[in-house]
Amino acid sequence: MPHVQITWVAGRSAEQKRKITQRVTQALVEDGRAKLENIHVTFHDLPATDYAEAGVMVADQQRAP
Amino acid sequence: MPHVQITWVAGRSAEQKRKITQRVTQALVEDGRAKLENIHVTFHDLPATDYAEAGVMVADQQRAP
Amino acid sequence: MPHVQITWVAGRSAEQKRKITQRVTQALVEDGRAKLENIHVTFHDLPATDYAEAGVMVADQQRAP
Amino acid sequence: MPHVQITWVAGRSAEQKRKITQRVTQALVEDGRAKLENIHVTFHDLPATDYAEAGVMVADQQRAP
Amino acid sequence: MPHVQITWVAGRSAEQKRKITQRVTQALVEDGRAKLENIHVTFHDLPATDYAEAGVMVADQQRAP
Amino acid sequence: MPHVQITWVAGRSAEQKRKITQRVTQALVEDGRAKLENIHVTFHDLPATDYAEAGVMVADQQRAP
Repeated sequence: MPHVQITWVAGRSAEQKRKITQRVTQALVEDGRAKLENIHVTFHDLPATDYAEAGVMVADQQRAP
Repeated sequence: MPHVQITWVAGRSAEQKRKITQRVTQALVEDGRAKLENIHVTFHDLPATDYAEAGVMVADQQRAP
Repeated sequence: MPHVQITWVAGRSAEQKRKITQRVTQALVEDGRAKLENIHVTFHDLPATDYAEAGVMVADQQRAP
Repeated sequence: MPHVQITWVAGRSAEQKRKITQRVTQALVEDGRAKLENIHVTFHDLPATDYAEAGVMVADQQRAP
Repeated sequence: MPHVQITWVAGRSAEQKRKITQRVTQALVEDGRAKLENIHVTFHDLPATDYAEAGVMVADQQRAP
Repeated sequence: MPHVQITWVAGRSAEQKRKITQRVTQALVEDGRAKLENIHVTFHDLPATDYAEAGVMVADQQRAP
């Protein structure tokens, strides 16, 4: 443990996910006393038609997600 | 907050998801005193081979999902 | 299916959850062609110290959650 | 209830998922007193670039996942 | 991986959870080619007022959960 | 978006969670182009009897979690 699930709209590269994974994992080890080898991080990429904020799908928002 | 995750078998249209999002969001505002701008709703579409009820995959059920 | 998970800061009553459950369930039946008996709705009540928005715990926010 | 979510890297066949579903469902009925018809099992297949262990994506691991 | 989340109404003993964990873990190793040391199983116990089936809270159902 | 769920065994302080939240949020903004105000981070504290690794509950492990 711990298990970290990151749910967002698809569009980030493998390299971006790698960097985020490293920073999240490091934060959990340093500030959360988690054991490195037991930390799991998963990314759940959703289409912009499947993620809504304030009742509006990201696909339908005027601004960039 | 809140965050609402809806997991089901794929097959609903963007328009169906929009309507459901609006009704769920409205219910949380009216009956749950949630702040509109902080409500997130996400849809997790799964293949019918990845969702089982009573030990049987939806893909293998005799009736419509 | 579907399975609906609602994650938020604790503080709503059983009656509020009942009403939200009914409205969410009804929306899924009417707009999502879901079968009533297979719809599951779960509430995950978290302490205000365990839910952060924009990097700030709800417990530390100036405004009401 | 209960609802069981299994998150892993894609690559298992429909037949493997069927077998796992049956064993998990049976365990919940026999050892958890769950009612068969209310047990839901869902599989969440992720790309090997979206699942990290110990800070390293499965896609980047030397060993087989 | 994989990560298995089991969400249900509280009431099972530590011994019941131990047995279920062992059977689920074994199924994933034998039928899913998962590596034993990377399998995580988590139980999410909810009050009967926070789990609804078919629009009705388990706490309000006539039959046993 | 995104929504980040961190599931682990209870035992970390509010201050530890605050620090982790800030680092995770910052990583998502800097490396994931996420909008600060839409980032949600939630902590799901479980008893050591409800989190198993390699088929063994953390509560039953010889080493520290």
